[in-house]
Amino acid sequence: MSETPHLTFDPDQAGMSKGHLVVPKGADSEPLPLPVLSFNKGEGPRLLITAGCHGNELEGPIVARRILDWLPRLQECGRVILVPVLNPPALKAWSRNSPGDGLNLNRVFPGRGDGSISERIADAVSRVLLPMVDTVFDLHSFGPRWEFAPASTTHPIADADLMSKTLRMSEAFKLPVTLVWEGPDTRGMFDTLAHSQGKIFVCLELGGGAVGTDNLAVAETGIRNALIALGIVRGKAEYPTFRQQKSSRTLKTFSSDQLKSPERGIFEPRCSVFDEVKQGDLIGILHPLDPCSSMPIDIRARTTSIVCGVKSGVPVDVNDELALLARPLHS
Amino acid sequence: MSETPHLTFDPDQAGMSKGHLVVPKGADSEPLPLPVLSFNKGEGPRLLITAGCHGNELEGPIVARRILDWLPRLQECGRVILVPVLNPPALKAWSRNSPGDGLNLNRVFPGRGDGSISERIADAVSRVLLPMVDTVFDLHSFGPRWEFAPASTTHPIADADLMSKTLRMSEAFKLPVTLVWEGPDTRGMFDTLAHSQGKIFVCLELGGGAVGTDNLAVAETGIRNALIALGIVRGKAEYPTFRQQKSSRTLKTFSSDQLKSPERGIFEPRCSVFDEVKQGDLIGILHPLDPCSSMPIDIRARTTSIVCGVKSGVPVDVNDELALLARPLHS
Repeated sequence: MSETPHLTFDPDQAGMSKGHLVVPKGADSEPLPLPVLSFNKGEGPRLLITAGCHGNELEGPIVARRILDWLPRLQECGRVILVPVLNPPALKAWSRNSPGDGLNLNRVFPGRGDGSISERIADAVSRVLLPMVDTVFDLHSFGPRWEFAPASTTHPIADADLMSKTLRMSEAFKLPVTLVWEGPDTRGMFDTLAHSQGKIFVCLELGGGAVGTDNLAVAETGIRNALIALGIVRGKAEYPTFRQQKSSRTLKTFSSDQLKSPERGIFEPRCSVFDEVKQGDLIGILHPLDPCSSMPIDIRARTTSIVCGVKSGVPVDVNDELALLARPLHS
Repeated sequence: MSETPHLTFDPDQAGMSKGHLVVPKGADSEPLPLPVLSFNKGEGPRLLITAGCHGNELEGPIVARRILDWLPRLQECGRVILVPVLNPPALKAWSRNSPGDGLNLNRVFPGRGDGSISERIADAVSRVLLPMVDTVFDLHSFGPRWEFAPASTTHPIADADLMSKTLRMSEAFKLPVTLVWEGPDTRGMFDTLAHSQGKIFVCLELGGGAVGTDNLAVAETGIRNALIALGIVRGKAEYPTFRQQKSSRTLKTFSSDQLKSPERGIFEPRCSVFDEVKQGDLIGILHPLDPCSSMPIDIRARTTSIVCGVKSGVPVDVNDELALLARPLHS
């Protein structure tokens, strides 16, 4: 019989403490210890911050380290549980999915204690950490294949009160974009589980492409803004600077707004983040791998939209997403 | 007995023509047809442009398509042979090395006719295309793991006259950086072969990170500038705009200027391209994967330098390159 997932330390002790969440061994691996830090200043909001669910989205794991520089000093109340890397095997491999079982960790929640490594990580987080908090920030990005505007995102939530609170929390990050995202299928996602338990869950998409100083500064400012809004740390919220601008807009996007590739080929982006496009405007060009064999295909906007993200110049397969377009939530 | 590499069309015909360079079959694959375009306007410079040597550097393959929009119309004289994708299997896999044999195509020149797929590609290019030209532009980039300033680069060349001509050609791109790069080991590189035959060879490093509209525009302008300088196309050279600046500088870098990772970990960049740093300035931080187990390590500049490239926030291994620093060539 396998052991149950557990913490190696007591997160109820005052101040900063650290240790591991032990994901029990399974048929495919030895026990996996996930580093966990706890910041306890007594009564107040109870927050879980997770990062590194996908191994090629390093904005979160790095910002998680930057938080350590000021959170212990600035915390006023409440509790923060911080998991800088949810999926160490995927991070070591710089891959979105877990290299062992090939699964997307963010599609297997609430997980299974007797499952493969991704399922056991999800199970450990769901059973040990999630019950300890009221609010979750899960730090993602669009990864190296995208140019993407740093955004706080949420899927639509059936519970109107929770939706309202979640949207307000999302906007408190003051990131360049707050996005209400009607995804095609949210089964197995961490946020779906948290929302079903009545918790506020905000998914951060902290950019895309190279993880550089600019995007990291935006991300860190956003997280601090949210901690200030929760009352956990003291300070004054400020808009981060993104591409010479300090601004924020709340947008919505539907599955039908996402442009997908009609063929295999090489995608050439012809627009940038925050471009405002009209129906028929050129978003990009899909080039055949062999320019002697067939013609390029223009990829055009279907409606008046704002570009939230556009794929980098990369090889794409049929049905790969090429651009994420959105429109104002209140219009 | 295997067939020999050959073109499926006659590049001596006037105007634009196209077809394939057939890389013969070998033990590991069927024949591989590489698309080739030829632009022949008679007497004048004879230029080979290659792109897509490394499969995750898409700037070149995309700019190669953009050239098609204006080269036939603007060409005045001479000949251009264009190979948009040297290594289609690597491009399909979005990987630096060839997926079949795991080799870096740019370390196996002049190749082997009876070798693995990378060696046979190198052999076909060396035997069929290289003898047809006096000048080669090979379009690379630093790939998705780097922030990098678009640069034309050359290694030092023993032949002083060829070095002088190569540097002048490199500067004619008017890219943000012209870089003389004393690499640690240039064996098997395409430029080493071309230089040994007295040809001018410029390696373009057309950026890094996301392949977006900005960098593609810089790259396209740079290539057009070089074609203008050669007299192949008519037009007026202009500095491309890179990060709100129109400027160009000629730098040199030595192996000892490159900062490498002392440990395995997560690299956090703390500088950006074009930052001017002094000895001891912070370039980045190397975080341990487990923040509970060990401390971060500061990565600092060794001398007064200009940042040409800095690694993105990614997982790194011991001895992985973290930053490429340089200094003015003439100082």
